[in-house]
Amino acid sequence: MPTCTCQNRTLNESGEHVCSLKPPMEKDKTKETREYVSPVRYSDGSVRLRNPNIELMDQDILYHLALGSGSHDLVEMFGDVKFVCMGGTPKRMENFANYIMKEIGHKLPAGTTLLDITKNSYRYSMYKVGPVLSISHGMGVPSVSILLHEVIKLMYHARVRDPIFFRIGTCGGIGYEGGTVVISEEAVDETMKPQMELTVLGKLLRRPAKLDRQLARDLKALAHRDDPYDTIIGKTMCSNDFYEGQGRLDGAFCEFSEADKMEYLTKLQKAGVVNIEMESICFAALTHHAGIQAAVVCVTLMDRLKGDQVLAPKEVLEE
Amino acid sequence: MPTCTCQNRTLNESGEHVCSLKPPMEKDKTKETREYVSPVRYSDGSVRLRNPNIELMDQDILYHLALGSGSHDLVEMFGDVKFVCMGGTPKRMENFANYIMKEIGHKLPAGTTLLDITKNSYRYSMYKVGPVLSISHGMGVPSVSILLHEVIKLMYHARVRDPIFFRIGTCGGIGYEGGTVVISEEAVDETMKPQMELTVLGKLLRRPAKLDRQLARDLKALAHRDDPYDTIIGKTMCSNDFYEGQGRLDGAFCEFSEADKMEYLTKLQKAGVVNIEMESICFAALTHHAGIQAAVVCVTLMDRLKGDQVLAPKEVLEE
Repeated sequence: MPTCTCQNRTLNESGEHVCSLKPPMEKDKTKETREYVSPVRYSDGSVRLRNPNIELMDQDILYHLALGSGSHDLVEMFGDVKFVCMGGTPKRMENFANYIMKEIGHKLPAGTTLLDITKNSYRYSMYKVGPVLSISHGMGVPSVSILLHEVIKLMYHARVRDPIFFRIGTCGGIGYEGGTVVISEEAVDETMKPQMELTVLGKLLRRPAKLDRQLARDLKALAHRDDPYDTIIGKTMCSNDFYEGQGRLDGAFCEFSEADKMEYLTKLQKAGVVNIEMESICFAALTHHAGIQAAVVCVTLMDRLKGDQVLAPKEVLEE
Repeated sequence: MPTCTCQNRTLNESGEHVCSLKPPMEKDKTKETREYVSPVRYSDGSVRLRNPNIELMDQDILYHLALGSGSHDLVEMFGDVKFVCMGGTPKRMENFANYIMKEIGHKLPAGTTLLDITKNSYRYSMYKVGPVLSISHGMGVPSVSILLHEVIKLMYHARVRDPIFFRIGTCGGIGYEGGTVVISEEAVDETMKPQMELTVLGKLLRRPAKLDRQLARDLKALAHRDDPYDTIIGKTMCSNDFYEGQGRLDGAFCEFSEADKMEYLTKLQKAGVVNIEMESICFAALTHHAGIQAAVVCVTLMDRLKGDQVLAPKEVLEE
């Protein structure tokens, strides 16, 4: 069976599949030894993986992106990427791609339009606008975790130098009205620990959920006093659940009182948590582990100290 | 601001929003006291919620479904539902809806076609074919958790009697080739405990991840010896990660050896685990807690004892 995603079913003289997407000569290029300066960087500044296995593989299939190092020329397709922006829904990230196209003055060739690069995966949506990738990550830590593994591998295969990752999302505010822009200085879990816990081969592993503080300050500096919304910096609590995990009273189950909920939210507030969402801890931990500069910017949909239900008919995203 | 999803922006004499989707008189109906026989059932067999707050709310917005008890006549729309089928991608669940339509001989009125009911949510896709709902749940526990909370609430609002929930998905087999159909007898976590751990108001909570054993046996009995695939029953391990959490060597990070991986997978196999996926523990725990009969049926994409990468270009789903 061919191990690439090309539709060519031709075999060569040795009975091996001939890939129609990438000429076989390309393969040898990727085999050359590359010098590195750190566990996460080659000497030219391109992304190095904390996984020695990938370099040794003939090809790497990025299954949930429907891309592969053997089936696609990833250097040609993605080598010029500088910024990777991720957010929850496909629609939002398509809108963001079109928004950023105008902002950076990127022009598409006449007669072309943006295409969802990972359309065939049916998992995520990915748009490319010059140096910017705009990708949907779905909801929750596991969904963003799969995407980050594959996008970080994509950065490696494409030999991208010093990319910067952004998550642009929605959240509940704690003490902040709907429409407030929150830049995360740090991500904490539901017990307020600034680390991601994951179970690897049955054993608990912890990774610090650090974000780039300078990048957060730089983003804050972009806020203008005439903006029709507030922009703040603070800690972000990442929950694995939208209802019970965030102290909502309106899930299918609720086994605590409104007083319990308010006590918990107030405790979060006193610890410096300004908003709650569902992906930041993984986003911070995996980008930090990969040595990639990252920031999380979310807009609040409501103040959780005042309610649970999302009443706003539409969210407006700004960076 | 109107608290429903209708597009009508008219206000009545008291300055209140007039909903174009549900006439105001409907509201009183939902306020009547309903007799119940258990924490999870009313006397007519319809779904009761383990949350006293919902009955007291004027309306309940199912935000991630873009539906609401105040904006939609949920009894009329969903009152006849018997089976709720969930799976990862929107595309698969659209295909499943069309497949099941033929299987049950359901006919749409002339000049109509299936519509994604939750299209406006940009989160999940939902199709209805007579008594069957076919809904995409995304990837991972948090994503399926949000959906289950809102679908269980939907069952309550629609007064559905004794619904049965199915998850139909893809998985990695342990000792079983790609194409094997696996019916889960139980879901276990990454440390092989048959329970879902969740953090509520900062405190750890555990819920048993039980599935309906009789339903699993009934499904197994549907397998035919002439089927071109095997159908088995066994334990399903649910991971919060596709790469490291499942012992894959090909993620962006890998800090263990192939021997470590094989030791872990063999340990799982000896404990009766036959497949690995990423949603079953939440699916089992939340349906069990809600008193809803449920089954998980997955097709293996590969045997994890033989490899990590997903090489199959297309998955074929059968129930």
